[in-house]
Amino acid sequence: MNYRNMNSDQRREELARCKAEFDRLKSVGLKLDMSRGKPGKEQLDLVSDILTVLRNPEDCVADGMDARNYGGLSGLPCARAYFADLLGCRPEECFVGGNASLALMYDTISKAYTHGLLHSEKPWAKLDQVKFLCPAPGYDRHFRVTESFGAELLTVEMTPDGPNMDQVEELVKDPAVKGIWCVPKYSNPDGIVYSDMTIRRFAALKPAAPDFVIMWDNAYCVHEFEGDFVPFPDIISLCREAGNPDMVFEYASTSKITFPGGGISVMASSEANIAYLSKLMGVQIISYDKVNQLRHVRYLKNKEETLRLMKKHAAVLGPKFRMVLDTLEREIEPLGIAEWQKPRGGYFVSVNTMDGIAKRTLELCKEAGVIMTAAGATFPYGKDPRDRNIRIAPSLPPVDELRQAMEVFCVSLRLAALEKLGS
Amino acid sequence: MNYRNMNSDQRREELARCKAEFDRLKSVGLKLDMSRGKPGKEQLDLVSDILTVLRNPEDCVADGMDARNYGGLSGLPCARAYFADLLGCRPEECFVGGNASLALMYDTISKAYTHGLLHSEKPWAKLDQVKFLCPAPGYDRHFRVTESFGAELLTVEMTPDGPNMDQVEELVKDPAVKGIWCVPKYSNPDGIVYSDMTIRRFAALKPAAPDFVIMWDNAYCVHEFEGDFVPFPDIISLCREAGNPDMVFEYASTSKITFPGGGISVMASSEANIAYLSKLMGVQIISYDKVNQLRHVRYLKNKEETLRLMKKHAAVLGPKFRMVLDTLEREIEPLGIAEWQKPRGGYFVSVNTMDGIAKRTLELCKEAGVIMTAAGATFPYGKDPRDRNIRIAPSLPPVDELRQAMEVFCVSLRLAALEKLGS
Repeated sequence: MNYRNMNSDQRREELARCKAEFDRLKSVGLKLDMSRGKPGKEQLDLVSDILTVLRNPEDCVADGMDARNYGGLSGLPCARAYFADLLGCRPEECFVGGNASLALMYDTISKAYTHGLLHSEKPWAKLDQVKFLCPAPGYDRHFRVTESFGAELLTVEMTPDGPNMDQVEELVKDPAVKGIWCVPKYSNPDGIVYSDMTIRRFAALKPAAPDFVIMWDNAYCVHEFEGDFVPFPDIISLCREAGNPDMVFEYASTSKITFPGGGISVMASSEANIAYLSKLMGVQIISYDKVNQLRHVRYLKNKEETLRLMKKHAAVLGPKFRMVLDTLEREIEPLGIAEWQKPRGGYFVSVNTMDGIAKRTLELCKEAGVIMTAAGATFPYGKDPRDRNIRIAPSLPPVDELRQAMEVFCVSLRLAALEKLGS
Repeated sequence: MNYRNMNSDQRREELARCKAEFDRLKSVGLKLDMSRGKPGKEQLDLVSDILTVLRNPEDCVADGMDARNYGGLSGLPCARAYFADLLGCRPEECFVGGNASLALMYDTISKAYTHGLLHSEKPWAKLDQVKFLCPAPGYDRHFRVTESFGAELLTVEMTPDGPNMDQVEELVKDPAVKGIWCVPKYSNPDGIVYSDMTIRRFAALKPAAPDFVIMWDNAYCVHEFEGDFVPFPDIISLCREAGNPDMVFEYASTSKITFPGGGISVMASSEANIAYLSKLMGVQIISYDKVNQLRHVRYLKNKEETLRLMKKHAAVLGPKFRMVLDTLEREIEPLGIAEWQKPRGGYFVSVNTMDGIAKRTLELCKEAGVIMTAAGATFPYGKDPRDRNIRIAPSLPPVDELRQAMEVFCVSLRLAALEKLGS
């Protein structure tokens, strides 16, 4: 029964029930961590054949290049071709990096500050003010990159179709607004897939800043855990066709395809952008780990093979997400105290509680031994203005632990709601 | 016979001999590249067992951590311990990175510009002027890092004991002087090992800038190709003992121990510096490739095992360096037109010709099909004021090719000298 429709007596009874249930769960002494989107051991094991794909010196030669030696700043040609296949862009538009796409994003922003981007009038460090758009809820690590350089973070509302594009189109009229963070497919944390219209409006943006940059983190480009692969437009061609060829940088990695701690990453953009940034990157590195690039190409082969592998990941992840979504539907939906998207890919379930109880809910979870991503983390500066967004990361714990964690979460949420509603 | 002691007729005859010899070599149509300190294929093959050191999931767990998953920003504990053993510092002083120590150096300087170092009054980007000391001949990639941020590069003379410390001690009285680049053991390109006195004077520096940084690139810390391992003092303890605990950052990598294109790297400094920089690095990356870190620790084990492996590298490199040094001694020394150090480690032989003929010598080499590091590259801004330094990198070509390349080099040098001396 919806909590708001209960009378005082009913709420008092419900509170008592919840407290008893909470105390029981607390006494179990759980120690569960659902704070980060880490793959579980089963997923890591299922790709561990990659360890021995390269076995001897002859295996290490590709494209006439010995992957073991120096050289090849922008990546092995076969690795560039692999990511082009995955993302639907051209190999020449791909710059293949080390194990962290976050590092490539950071490099882009860092160089914008110290050297400027291709169309910058001056390095951003020389400007009085830099503003950056942050669709929220979003990915805390994105926001922190721009925050660490002193940019002012402006929150953009998220809708079921992606960022509120009316708001974006308005905000980019300010020449101090230099860019926007996006996770276009299975957004972190909502799991929203940007609609075709949203994507087209992105490609057609007419920002006042000539060096405005769309940071297109396609982290979950092939990461369906439910149903078949969902094709997704290539933002780089769309921007080119819309007359904005150099406006977007796209990122992806194999962190959640092979190993989070030992994958490869890519930065994709117009050839002009890649040429410009490669010159700057060439000052900092001779080449990224090409042995690991080759290991990945030999193991993952191409998009088709990769999609086959992602089905195996889905077989592990699907039941975990269904457990979370089913539990929420059963335990929480009837109470009218929270809402959430029902993602079919990505790594998170994002719950919006009634206003003002996200922090309290997570406090209670912690008290009962379940650590979740800190409340507010999904907003710029870690401050959720309505204190309502909670990011659930179901990937790491085994299903049994997840069940326990969700029990704790649901009763904590109910308690927090009842405390707020009063009796 | 010394060219300077020849009379006109003798020189004319010698010139004719050289020209004939040069034309003969040119007609062979060589295509040799000695421009970079790349290990040769034989060296890469001898370490390729590292490819299969990790074979299955269980192999990937170390220090209670699954190397395949996220986490561990400063590196696997066993990798930190490995580098501490190698360098003679403490594990807590080591931050283990990806395949490129150059990237860690770049990060340090980049963050000094955007955020400041531990003792910076402000980020260097906010200062009117930053000057950086460059002992030269030195490593072009070092110089380019600071140049790319707009620092003014000041050349410091190299002596057989290391940088001229009288000059360094004088220059650091200028508060705009923010640091110095050093390759303390088998310096690039001279192959000089800094003397104990030089190292102690470094540790005891009293720079005017509170955030002065010694960039101690110990790239060749175990890279003897002749004779036994030469122990080397730990600069981090020396700085601590001299009351300058946070003045030095040391770097090293396995690029020339295992694979240049797939090794691991380290940045070592005081715990306070590592803590400070880790906070900034944590914005750009979750962790470096820990699978490769573990692969390296399992393969290289410790300093003792690594030194055994370096003997095998020496067995490949030694003959190449001896060929270069013997050829120079036989062909050039009697002529009095060039001088060089006789290194016992590192990757280069650095030749100082008589003034004003380095460029011309390399032009002739190129004409005959032998590419060497561009003249001037070993000096700030790529400008050798006396046009005399040439860096020979003998590691890549097989001995036979190297013999041909050295023939070309010697005759080119003789020709250039004779042109200069006139008849």
